[in-house]
Amino acid sequence: MSEMFTVRTIYEDKARNYILRQGKANFGQGSLAHDVLRAVSLAGVVPQEVYSGLLPGQKRYDHSEMEAVLKGMLDGVLKGKHPSPYWPDAFRAVLDVYMQPVPKHFNYRGKSYTPRTFAESLGISPEDYISFTSFTHHPFHTSFVLEIPDNYSNGSYYNLPLDELVSVVDEAIAKGYTVAWDGDVSEEGFSARAGLAVLPEDPNRSDLFTQPGEELQVTQEMRQRAFMNFSTTDDHLMHIVGMAHDQNGTKYYIVKNSWGNIGPYGGVVYISEAYFRMKTIAVTMHKSAVNGLGEEN
Amino acid sequence: MSEMFTVRTIYEDKARNYILRQGKANFGQGSLAHDVLRAVSLAGVVPQEVYSGLLPGQKRYDHSEMEAVLKGMLDGVLKGKHPSPYWPDAFRAVLDVYMQPVPKHFNYRGKSYTPRTFAESLGISPEDYISFTSFTHHPFHTSFVLEIPDNYSNGSYYNLPLDELVSVVDEAIAKGYTVAWDGDVSEEGFSARAGLAVLPEDPNRSDLFTQPGEELQVTQEMRQRAFMNFSTTDDHLMHIVGMAHDQNGTKYYIVKNSWGNIGPYGGVVYISEAYFRMKTIAVTMHKSAVNGLGEEN
Amino acid sequence: MSEMFTVRTIYEDKARNYILRQGKANFGQGSLAHDVLRAVSLAGVVPQEVYSGLLPGQKRYDHSEMEAVLKGMLDGVLKGKHPSPYWPDAFRAVLDVYMQPVPKHFNYRGKSYTPRTFAESLGISPEDYISFTSFTHHPFHTSFVLEIPDNYSNGSYYNLPLDELVSVVDEAIAKGYTVAWDGDVSEEGFSARAGLAVLPEDPNRSDLFTQPGEELQVTQEMRQRAFMNFSTTDDHLMHIVGMAHDQNGTKYYIVKNSWGNIGPYGGVVYISEAYFRMKTIAVTMHKSAVNGLGEEN
Amino acid sequence: MSEMFTVRTIYEDKARNYILRQGKANFGQGSLAHDVLRAVSLAGVVPQEVYSGLLPGQKRYDHSEMEAVLKGMLDGVLKGKHPSPYWPDAFRAVLDVYMQPVPKHFNYRGKSYTPRTFAESLGISPEDYISFTSFTHHPFHTSFVLEIPDNYSNGSYYNLPLDELVSVVDEAIAKGYTVAWDGDVSEEGFSARAGLAVLPEDPNRSDLFTQPGEELQVTQEMRQRAFMNFSTTDDHLMHIVGMAHDQNGTKYYIVKNSWGNIGPYGGVVYISEAYFRMKTIAVTMHKSAVNGLGEEN
Amino acid sequence: MSEMFTVRTIYEDKARNYILRQGKANFGQGSLAHDVLRAVSLAGVVPQEVYSGLLPGQKRYDHSEMEAVLKGMLDGVLKGKHPSPYWPDAFRAVLDVYMQPVPKHFNYRGKSYTPRTFAESLGISPEDYISFTSFTHHPFHTSFVLEIPDNYSNGSYYNLPLDELVSVVDEAIAKGYTVAWDGDVSEEGFSARAGLAVLPEDPNRSDLFTQPGEELQVTQEMRQRAFMNFSTTDDHLMHIVGMAHDQNGTKYYIVKNSWGNIGPYGGVVYISEAYFRMKTIAVTMHKSAVNGLGEEN
Amino acid sequence: MSEMFTVRTIYEDKARNYILRQGKANFGQGSLAHDVLRAVSLAGVVPQEVYSGLLPGQKRYDHSEMEAVLKGMLDGVLKGKHPSPYWPDAFRAVLDVYMQPVPKHFNYRGKSYTPRTFAESLGISPEDYISFTSFTHHPFHTSFVLEIPDNYSNGSYYNLPLDELVSVVDEAIAKGYTVAWDGDVSEEGFSARAGLAVLPEDPNRSDLFTQPGEELQVTQEMRQRAFMNFSTTDDHLMHIVGMAHDQNGTKYYIVKNSWGNIGPYGGVVYISEAYFRMKTIAVTMHKSAVNGLGEEN
Repeated sequence: MSEMFTVRTIYEDKARNYILRQGKANFGQGSLAHDVLRAVSLAGVVPQEVYSGLLPGQKRYDHSEMEAVLKGMLDGVLKGKHPSPYWPDAFRAVLDVYMQPVPKHFNYRGKSYTPRTFAESLGISPEDYISFTSFTHHPFHTSFVLEIPDNYSNGSYYNLPLDELVSVVDEAIAKGYTVAWDGDVSEEGFSARAGLAVLPEDPNRSDLFTQPGEELQVTQEMRQRAFMNFSTTDDHLMHIVGMAHDQNGTKYYIVKNSWGNIGPYGGVVYISEAYFRMKTIAVTMHKSAVNGLGEEN
Repeated sequence: MSEMFTVRTIYEDKARNYILRQGKANFGQGSLAHDVLRAVSLAGVVPQEVYSGLLPGQKRYDHSEMEAVLKGMLDGVLKGKHPSPYWPDAFRAVLDVYMQPVPKHFNYRGKSYTPRTFAESLGISPEDYISFTSFTHHPFHTSFVLEIPDNYSNGSYYNLPLDELVSVVDEAIAKGYTVAWDGDVSEEGFSARAGLAVLPEDPNRSDLFTQPGEELQVTQEMRQRAFMNFSTTDDHLMHIVGMAHDQNGTKYYIVKNSWGNIGPYGGVVYISEAYFRMKTIAVTMHKSAVNGLGEEN
Repeated sequence: MSEMFTVRTIYEDKARNYILRQGKANFGQGSLAHDVLRAVSLAGVVPQEVYSGLLPGQKRYDHSEMEAVLKGMLDGVLKGKHPSPYWPDAFRAVLDVYMQPVPKHFNYRGKSYTPRTFAESLGISPEDYISFTSFTHHPFHTSFVLEIPDNYSNGSYYNLPLDELVSVVDEAIAKGYTVAWDGDVSEEGFSARAGLAVLPEDPNRSDLFTQPGEELQVTQEMRQRAFMNFSTTDDHLMHIVGMAHDQNGTKYYIVKNSWGNIGPYGGVVYISEAYFRMKTIAVTMHKSAVNGLGEEN
Repeated sequence: MSEMFTVRTIYEDKARNYILRQGKANFGQGSLAHDVLRAVSLAGVVPQEVYSGLLPGQKRYDHSEMEAVLKGMLDGVLKGKHPSPYWPDAFRAVLDVYMQPVPKHFNYRGKSYTPRTFAESLGISPEDYISFTSFTHHPFHTSFVLEIPDNYSNGSYYNLPLDELVSVVDEAIAKGYTVAWDGDVSEEGFSARAGLAVLPEDPNRSDLFTQPGEELQVTQEMRQRAFMNFSTTDDHLMHIVGMAHDQNGTKYYIVKNSWGNIGPYGGVVYISEAYFRMKTIAVTMHKSAVNGLGEEN
Repeated sequence: MSEMFTVRTIYEDKARNYILRQGKANFGQGSLAHDVLRAVSLAGVVPQEVYSGLLPGQKRYDHSEMEAVLKGMLDGVLKGKHPSPYWPDAFRAVLDVYMQPVPKHFNYRGKSYTPRTFAESLGISPEDYISFTSFTHHPFHTSFVLEIPDNYSNGSYYNLPLDELVSVVDEAIAKGYTVAWDGDVSEEGFSARAGLAVLPEDPNRSDLFTQPGEELQVTQEMRQRAFMNFSTTDDHLMHIVGMAHDQNGTKYYIVKNSWGNIGPYGGVVYISEAYFRMKTIAVTMHKSAVNGLGEEN
Repeated sequence: MSEMFTVRTIYEDKARNYILRQGKANFGQGSLAHDVLRAVSLAGVVPQEVYSGLLPGQKRYDHSEMEAVLKGMLDGVLKGKHPSPYWPDAFRAVLDVYMQPVPKHFNYRGKSYTPRTFAESLGISPEDYISFTSFTHHPFHTSFVLEIPDNYSNGSYYNLPLDELVSVVDEAIAKGYTVAWDGDVSEEGFSARAGLAVLPEDPNRSDLFTQPGEELQVTQEMRQRAFMNFSTTDDHLMHIVGMAHDQNGTKYYIVKNSWGNIGPYGGVVYISEAYFRMKTIAVTMHKSAVNGLGEEN
């Protein structure tokens, strides 16, 4: 699947939201798992081979100028009193320049598709997925719009007590599902290079990534406090693909990262349960992994 | 019901949203029908006799200084890197000064209540209400988060073709329900003083409010264009309580306004169907008025 | 000739200048006569029939949103340290959306052209034209870069004493040449509706445009003072096509305006010599009209 | 004495000043010795046991969020044209949240007091104190309002030649009085950790705090220049409690700091006479220490 | 006396204050009576014949560009960390350009003076004057620094109950003294053209300036409220030179204005006692008019 | 020649340009070679002995406060709608304070001069000089206004292919002329201390300035790219006075710098041809060194 096709779709969606809310909204990089699904609903899917989003000669993505240009355009539109009907075309034209145009039709493994028909052929159905979180400023066992800057599309999350959130993930993994993880990786205890994420009692320990040590006992209240004072913020999206235990019996989630073949496990990070409890913003998974939990709302 | 109790509750909710989204959100006056219901969920209801929100000697509400003070506080909080746990108390303390504290317990018609138990006694159940709108930038017969500045709480609206939206309202009124109306009243054709809202073909007609005249034939596309270019914006909340027809057979909605006893009909405005089709942002009504429409989503 | 093709070309040229000067330059609407010639050098000419610059359904130009969008883009580019090579394409793509793409090849009266070959076929040679002005803050009979906001391309003007400037224009007209005029039309004494521009001694005279009256005797020093204190600013470009005298012997220039068929003379304005002396910023004409004047520099 | 009670009082006083001067004044942390006395006049005194200004669980003061919130409130008030009478209550309510409310009445060593009656019982009489400084931009032996950002309350200082200023302090100490010192401690030669403040000829000396060395000979003119070019600024308030001399006969003032038990002398700093001459902004002492000096003005 | 010499002196004094307070102060036009006396102390007096402050050809003062230029300079100085010793000379040089240089020595009626010796010859002694005001936010019968934007020099005012303030002025006038008046003249009831200032009960009365009518009974509290909510602000300085009564016995102060020969009384305005009580910011008079009142403080 | 006399002249010229272009221009430090010649045209020349531009006691130039003050003044002028005729005098008065006034007449080696007559006596004729550059965004063998922030005076440069530019400089040097060089010295490979400027293939080589190594082969296109993405910017002006070759046959230009006696060659820097090709913005030389090249335009 072409990640850049999703990125484009989300930019267009954010732009419309930003204009219609008259600039009282977030416009910037950063997406959540449910935005990826939303992008499928909005525009379908394209194979990576068909759309890399790279310009001739480019090796890696650098969207910083593009983002500043797009933001400047939208703020220009909002300087007038009445947006014209032309700005969305201008916005897309700039995306085309910086990210290549997307083919409306393409051939893949001998068949012809549009992005939407390709999505259908894959059987991805965004409404089959559900997102969970765990915070006390809304009642448990109800859904709410999570108030973080990146949730521009105002997706709803089903709220669970922390222990239940852990159970739901563990059961999904046990059943063989993978789980999308939104959380905070800009922490002392997170090291892609070491392939490890821990929440040590003593964050200044010099052997943080070489020796198992005591971790914090994370309560619902500690987690809430860290969220309310911005110690925990959303900054990355990864995939939980399995579980493991170390010699002391500490449970770790096996998590696939998108930063390339880094660290001893080929780009995989082992996240301890303590880290997971503190630094998870939300998880998203297939509804069949949870037997209808969260559906009633 | 105390309107000011609702206003307070919404201010507190907006403040939390504004802080958690790190200022990338709207904080200001202006609420939608679903916010009123949300306020009931969050904090309950208080009778007007128990809480007027007026200070000794005050006759009318003027929250402009209070709003600027509250906004200044929140921006002050966001200047630091980590919000303290104290700011919500400070925020409430300022509300108490400008709007009086709310009693935690009160007696009403001989019984003792809290705001929540009073809400329960009234049998108001926010989840029994549903909101409808009609725009083409999302698929019909699905729910979506309406992208307008005032929708700070990101309420979902069930999207209907324009003719269906009219039918749904007409049927609800016919069944005896009232309907909350969010829409645009800052138009040439709207006059609280005349008790009339029309969408004339010729908006410069001098006898706009004294003589029936030709109105625009509002299509889905005209409505969409006016929304996308900010000709239609949300700026008021009223209650549709009935229907009427004039001598030419033009249909009008009978709408109760909250601006006091103004105009020939004691504060009631007759809104023509054409005006309704063009200038309605959304309507909210009891689910039992619509037989489960919109529930599936 | 397509005016909008020239406008586009100038926007692209201004954009490059604005970026390379790191924002220390003017980017906005407004061009001078020499910019039109510069545009021919840079990109050639296209017939009006081939490129109107109007979108389907548009009747008149309104570039205000486009200008704000373009300015926002460029400021976005300058937010980064190193402009990418892609922004000029993005800039052009936005012009294409708001003004239509320009055909690279086109047929005109049975022949195939590019903009450049079409310019050549017309025999327009920008270096055959020369611009004159008259200000005392630079020596006369030398060229200098006129310091006005619209002179973004920093064109040079040959500086003449005021009386000589008048003679040069009069002689050119007498020889049958037309003269491009850059000047100030936002004055009490200028009326496109009356087809008249005068510089009355008493600007409050009620019969300004119906009765000839005393005009100011404009000296070099008055003209200079008005320029230095921004009483005279550049805001319009028109074409002097002839001369006339009224019953009192006052000389007028016959000037073609581009605002359509306005006023008693079908879009022509009679500009009095006094007005010309005070409010002319510069004139541009074919070099053969001036026998090599200004060439030595 | 409760320092935080004084801090609160000064915040309220600064707020009124800031509003009445329509924002053309300083609002921020930082007070001078005379502000402490002014606070006694305005609101009295409270024992530390009665009011710590700490919230439950707090160990140390951190007023940065509170200050940003208070500033935001006041700027909000000034956004309107006419301040309401309510803002001072709102301001106090926020102080109460961040610093605890102050008891209107309290018991202390078996007696009941208000802050004012407690101040009276202590016999503190602000008008018994006088402040001295030494600068040449005002005549000596007169009082003037010292123009530094922190002097928001515009206290007057009696101006003495530098040598007289030193004598006045020396005599006061000799008589057994203590002297409040406002001055600059953000200097290379000041070290709370070393308990020493010197003004070395060579500020890069590595043995600055271990070995006595040559100090600058501070003249009135050097002192003035350092003040006028912001090399000397007011940033701290301490108490001079005695004098001492080192092995070379250099005179030091023994100064009590409020930063806790730091350095070899338990929180006391030895300030050399050279440092005192250069870096003293002002001193404040009891009038009886100076036999009426400065009274005539 | 040259008013412009005073204006210059105050500009220089404000500039020093603005720099030393690091911009946390007011810099702009507008002075109070005590500033005029302060200017005499700082720089002396010059006769109007010797220094008009007008440039060759100028008829009236227009300091708006000069003020913007001076403010720009000072803000430029504050952009650096350490003001140089040169900026005051640069500041004065700009004053010299816009207002002419002041002669250091001059002849007046056959004698040679400096500004200071001239002031001495006139026997003006600023310390012989005292200012009174009447506000309840400071204790009566003490002096305080009046918190208004124009009080940049932080002059002290002796605070009197409103009735005493009136008595003090009445007695001074009765003894033959004149009284400088700082107050608010931008009020409906003030008309320089009518030579009248009244405080009508009904400010919409059409015969405000032609017919005596009911005026407000101004209490101390009304006066305070108008001050605290910026209804009363300082904006003008005039001279009370006498008293009068109308046919109804209403008392008026006879006040000389500096706006030239306007109105029926040749530039004099009759200010009613009600207006005086409400709109007076402060009065300044010779100490001998008040028998030492206010001296104790 | 007094460098500071030139600096002053350029400041005055920049100021006029900044005002007349209503702030849409660059005002700051930094000049190009042609500005120095322009300054001679505008105001003449003064010997260094006659005008150092240093104030009594100053050893080195520090114009940062002056520049901020001058910029503040000009922005103050532009706040008004109509600049007065006085601001240029005020601007010059400030230059006089920070840089000393320039004598209108002076004696030099027994003769009396004005700056203009002195320039004439030296036989410097600005129109005898010509500037060359080499960029592909304008056609070769034509002149164009180089779009860099420092080119405030919009000087024209004759555009040559890179190899021709090198030849022109080499020939001029061979004929015994010196060449003014505008270019970029804030590069890893430039070291005034080593007296060397190179463009290494590997910029991280540790022996960059001690050992000859491979340099980049600079093409026209590499040079253009570095200019368009701001890798090459104009930041210094020096004088090429000769040529040399190292042991490997690499060609170097011998360049006199103005930073004093730094490095092994007494302030001279050896610039390799590769560095010259990449980092030269422009060169300026006497027309007789180039046999009329560039004259035709």
